[in-house]
Amino acid sequence: MSDESRDARRDWEQAVLEPALAKRAERQTRFTTPSGLEVERLYGPWDQAGAGDQASYDETLGYPASYPFTRGVQPTMYRGRYWTMRQYAGFGSASETNERFRYLLEKGQTGLSVAFDLPTQMGLDPDHPMSLGEVGRVGVSISTMADMEALLAGIPLDRVSTSMTINSTAPILLAMYIAVAEKQGVDRSVLRGTVQNDVLKEYIARGTYIFPPAGSMRLITDLFAFTAREVPKWNPISISGYHLREAGSTAVEELGIMMANAVAYVEAAMAAGLDVDAFAGNLSFFFSCHNNFLEEIAKFRAARRLWARLMKERFGAKQARSMMLRFHTQTSGVTLTAQQPENNVMRVAYQAMAAAFGGTQSLHTNSWDEALALPTQASALNALRTQQVLAHETGIADTIDPFAGSYVVEAWTDRIEEQAVALMKKIEEAGGAVAAIEKQLPQQLIADSSYRYQLEVEHGERKIVGVNTQQESKAVAIDVFKVDPETSARQSAAVKDVRARRDGAATQRALDALTEAARGDAALMPLIVDAVKAYASVGEISDAFRGVFGTYSEGG
Amino acid sequence: MSDESRDARRDWEQAVLEPALAKRAERQTRFTTPSGLEVERLYGPWDQAGAGDQASYDETLGYPASYPFTRGVQPTMYRGRYWTMRQYAGFGSASETNERFRYLLEKGQTGLSVAFDLPTQMGLDPDHPMSLGEVGRVGVSISTMADMEALLAGIPLDRVSTSMTINSTAPILLAMYIAVAEKQGVDRSVLRGTVQNDVLKEYIARGTYIFPPAGSMRLITDLFAFTAREVPKWNPISISGYHLREAGSTAVEELGIMMANAVAYVEAAMAAGLDVDAFAGNLSFFFSCHNNFLEEIAKFRAARRLWARLMKERFGAKQARSMMLRFHTQTSGVTLTAQQPENNVMRVAYQAMAAAFGGTQSLHTNSWDEALALPTQASALNALRTQQVLAHETGIADTIDPFAGSYVVEAWTDRIEEQAVALMKKIEEAGGAVAAIEKQLPQQLIADSSYRYQLEVEHGERKIVGVNTQQESKAVAIDVFKVDPETSARQSAAVKDVRARRDGAATQRALDALTEAARGDAALMPLIVDAVKAYASVGEISDAFRGVFGTYSEGG
Repeated sequence: MSDESRDARRDWEQAVLEPALAKRAERQTRFTTPSGLEVERLYGPWDQAGAGDQASYDETLGYPASYPFTRGVQPTMYRGRYWTMRQYAGFGSASETNERFRYLLEKGQTGLSVAFDLPTQMGLDPDHPMSLGEVGRVGVSISTMADMEALLAGIPLDRVSTSMTINSTAPILLAMYIAVAEKQGVDRSVLRGTVQNDVLKEYIARGTYIFPPAGSMRLITDLFAFTAREVPKWNPISISGYHLREAGSTAVEELGIMMANAVAYVEAAMAAGLDVDAFAGNLSFFFSCHNNFLEEIAKFRAARRLWARLMKERFGAKQARSMMLRFHTQTSGVTLTAQQPENNVMRVAYQAMAAAFGGTQSLHTNSWDEALALPTQASALNALRTQQVLAHETGIADTIDPFAGSYVVEAWTDRIEEQAVALMKKIEEAGGAVAAIEKQLPQQLIADSSYRYQLEVEHGERKIVGVNTQQESKAVAIDVFKVDPETSARQSAAVKDVRARRDGAATQRALDALTEAARGDAALMPLIVDAVKAYASVGEISDAFRGVFGTYSEGG
Repeated sequence: MSDESRDARRDWEQAVLEPALAKRAERQTRFTTPSGLEVERLYGPWDQAGAGDQASYDETLGYPASYPFTRGVQPTMYRGRYWTMRQYAGFGSASETNERFRYLLEKGQTGLSVAFDLPTQMGLDPDHPMSLGEVGRVGVSISTMADMEALLAGIPLDRVSTSMTINSTAPILLAMYIAVAEKQGVDRSVLRGTVQNDVLKEYIARGTYIFPPAGSMRLITDLFAFTAREVPKWNPISISGYHLREAGSTAVEELGIMMANAVAYVEAAMAAGLDVDAFAGNLSFFFSCHNNFLEEIAKFRAARRLWARLMKERFGAKQARSMMLRFHTQTSGVTLTAQQPENNVMRVAYQAMAAAFGGTQSLHTNSWDEALALPTQASALNALRTQQVLAHETGIADTIDPFAGSYVVEAWTDRIEEQAVALMKKIEEAGGAVAAIEKQLPQQLIADSSYRYQLEVEHGERKIVGVNTQQESKAVAIDVFKVDPETSARQSAAVKDVRARRDGAATQRALDALTEAARGDAALMPLIVDAVKAYASVGEISDAFRGVFGTYSEGG
C-alpha cells in the first residue's frame, strides 16, 4: 500500500468510521462465522494474497478444470450444463419409491438418489427382529434383488446416474444395481453413479457401521479395485462431510475431517496395491451447505484447492482427474426449523445458491417439511423447483465462479484451506483417521462445536427466525407424509416369499464362496454379484461378512 | 499480464477449453444479461480496471460512506443495523389498512409503506364518477384528513418512518401526514419518511399524472423547498426506476432514465433558487430488483458511483450527503408468475438477497401471490419472514459489500455505469428528461426492450419456470385476497359525511388561498397544509390546481 493509500484509509477511519461508531455501535461487538472465522468489517485489496495480481492468480486460482482447480472442475462449468438436480428420496417399498422417482424425473430431476431404510443400511432383512418399526421408515426397504428390480422398473440405467446413500452394505446394493442393469441389457461398463461407502464417517457421526474398521476398509478398497476395472464410470465412494456437519461440526471441521478420512482411503487403496491414478479420479465427495452464505462458498473453493494440492504433492497423482474434487451437495437438514416450517423454503433457496456459487456437481435441495417428516410429493416438487428457478432464472450459471476475486471470499478461501490443513495435521499426529476415530478425536471436536453452537443459539448470539427471534405463539397444522404402517409386515412377507421361491442350494453355494473369499484375500465384489443374482438377501450376505470380520460397537 | 501468465492462459485454452467445447457445446452460443451485457465465460484479474490494485481501488471503489460511495453509503452498513424492512401495503379503507400495518409492525417490520388506490393518486374523491370500481382496489382510499387519521391511528409517528407511494398528489398526502402528526403532538421537524413525488416517471411509465410537466415541476420543487426548511428528515422525492423496469426496461435503462429524471429535478430546484446542498441530501431513489442476480448487484453499485460523480462533478455538490445515493428496493412484480405461484417465494428470496448485496437502505419483498391479487395476511407475513431469514441467518449482513473485488461484478459495475451515462447523454441531447419524454424517447426505449424480452421468452432463450419450461397442465387453486366490494359505497358516503360536517366556509377560504397562490409564484405547501386541516379533500385540492395548471394527456 502506498503512503497515499494508507493516508486515504486512515482519513476514512478517523473522519467517517470512528464518529459513526461513536454515535452508534454495531449490532455486535464481534462478528464471526459459525466456523469461528473473524468477520472483518471491510475486505479490500489489502486482503488479497492471490486474487489481486495475475502472477499469484495463476498459482492460487488458475483456470477452471486446471490445477489447483479453485475455480471449478469443468472447463465451462454450468455454461456447459447445469449441475445434476438429484433429489434424495426413498420410503416404504421399492415400488412406492419407484413411483416417486418417476414423478421427480417427469418434473425435470436429472439424476436419482436413493435413500435406504435403516435395516438395509445395517445389513438386516425386514423380518429380522431388530428391523421392527424401521422397515421403510427413513428410506426404501431393499433386501433382495427382487426389490431392486422393482425400485428401478422403467428407469433406463444407461441414461440416468444414480447415487445410493449406503455404506456398510454398499457392495451388496451396488452388486444388485449391476445385476438389474444387466437384466435390462445394460452393460456395467456404462453405468454411472455413486455409492456413499464412506464408513469412516459412520464411526464418527452417522452410526450405520457393522464391521470393525479393518473389515470395513477391506470392503471399501475391494470396491475401489472392482469399479476401477469393471464399472469405470462409477464413483465407488462419496467421502462425506455432510453427516459430520449435521452432527454439529463447523464448516472447517467438515472439510478437515472428511479430508483426513479421504487420506485414509487413499492410503488404504495404495497399500492394497492400487495405483493412485487408477482410482483417485473416481473418488467423489459430499458436502452440506449451511446458512452462512459466504463461508459456504469459500469452503467449496478451498476444498477444491486443498484436494488438488494434496493429491499432487503428497500422493504424486499425475492425472488432472485425480486432483479434481467433484462433489454432491445437500442443503442442510439441521438448519431447517419445525417452527414456521414455510420459512425453510427461503433457507433452502439460499443454501442451494451458495452450493451453485461453490461449483457443486450435483445438488439435493431439502423440502420445507423435512424438519417434520419425510417430504410429501408436493414439498419434494417445490424443492426441485427451487433448483430450476436458480438454474434458469438467476443467471448465476452463465459465468464461471462469480465470486472469484471477491475480497472477502478469497480471504476466507485462504483461511479455510489453512485451518482445514491444520486440522488434518492434528488427526495425522493422532495416527491418522482410523486411529483418531478410535481415540474419539473427531467425535469430540464435533461434540464441542455442536455444544458451542447450541449455546450461541440459546444466548441469542446466533438468531434463527421462529426459534429465538420472531417466534409465533401458535403453530400452524401441516399435513405431513406418513409411511404406510403395513410396510414392515409386507416387506417381511416379501423376503420370506423370495427365500421360498429361489434355488436355495444355489444361494447357499454363493454365500459359502463369499465367506471363503472373505477369510482369505480374494476379490469380493464378483462373488457378491453372484450372490445377489442368486437372490441372497442383504441380511444373509452381511451375516457372511459378520462371521469373518466380526462386528463393531463404539469404544471397540 | 506477463508472458508467463499469457502462456498459462493460452495453454489452458488449447489443452482444456477447446477440447471440451469440441466435445460438447455450451448451453447457448452466446450468453447475455437481460440488459444485453455480454456474459463472458471467465472473468479474472485481466478484467479489473479498478479493483485489482490499491491505487485504483481508492479511486473507483473507496471506502463506505466515502466518495465515490461504490461500497455503500453507511460507514458500517448492515453491521450497524439491517436495512429497513418496509412492506408496501394498503387496500380498502384506512382502518383496514391500519390493521395490516399494525400486524406487520408486530411481526417485526421496521418501516411503513403506504399503497394508495388509483383515485387518491389521480386526485379524485371516492364519490367522483371516474373513481367507480377503483376505490380501495390497489391501495387504500384517502380523501380527507379524517382518513389519514384512521390510517395512522396508534402508530407513533415520531418513531416510525413512512414511505408513501404517491406522486401527483404527493403534496396533499404529505400535508395530511404532517397535520395528523401535529394532532398526535409530534412536530413536523422530527418526521421521517418519503413521498414518491416522481412525476416524470409517471409520464414515462406509470400513468398517474394529472398536470402538464410545468405544473408538476412547480409542485415538486415547491415540496423540495418546503421539506428542506420545515421537515428536514423527510425525503421529498423517491426518484424511481422501479416502474420503468416494471414497464419492461432493462437494468441499464432503469438506471440511465431515472438518473436523467434526477438531473431534471436537480436542475429545476437549482433554477428555483435552491442551493444544491440544501436539498440534494434528501433526494432518495427507488429501484427494482429483478432475477439476474449479478447484474442487479452491479447495477446498485454502479448507481452509487454514477450519482456521486454526477453530483460532485456536474452540480458542484460539496457535502458528502448530497453525493450519497440512498435507495429503497422492491423485488420485481413482473418476474412473478401466476403459474405455480409458490415458486415466487424463491424468486423473491433471490431478488431480496441481491438487493442486500447491492447495499439497499430499505426493502420491500413481494408476496408470492401478488401475480394473482393483493397479498393475504399470510403471504405478506411470508414475504417479511424472507427478509428476516436473509438478515439474521445468511451472515451476508456482517461484512460490507461482499461482492467487492469480484472480477465479474466489478467488470459489470464499470459496464453498467458507462452504459447508463451514455443513455443519459442521449436524453441530454434530446433536450433533457422533460423534452425527451414529450418526444416519447424513454417510452420508446422501454417499449423496444420490453418487446425484445418478450420475444426472448417466447423463443425460449430466457427460461421461466412454469411459463416456458417445467409447465404444469393443471393449475392449483389458491385462496386470494379480495377487497370488500362495499368499499366504494362506504368511502363515498364517508367523504360526503366529512363535507357535511366540516366548516364549509373555512374550507372554501383555504382552497381559494391555494388557487390564488398557484396563479402566482408563492410557496404552496403551507397553504396545502392549511387546506387539509380544514378537511379539504384530495379531489378538491387537486381541482384547485387543475384550474390553474391544466391537465395533461399523453402526446400533449
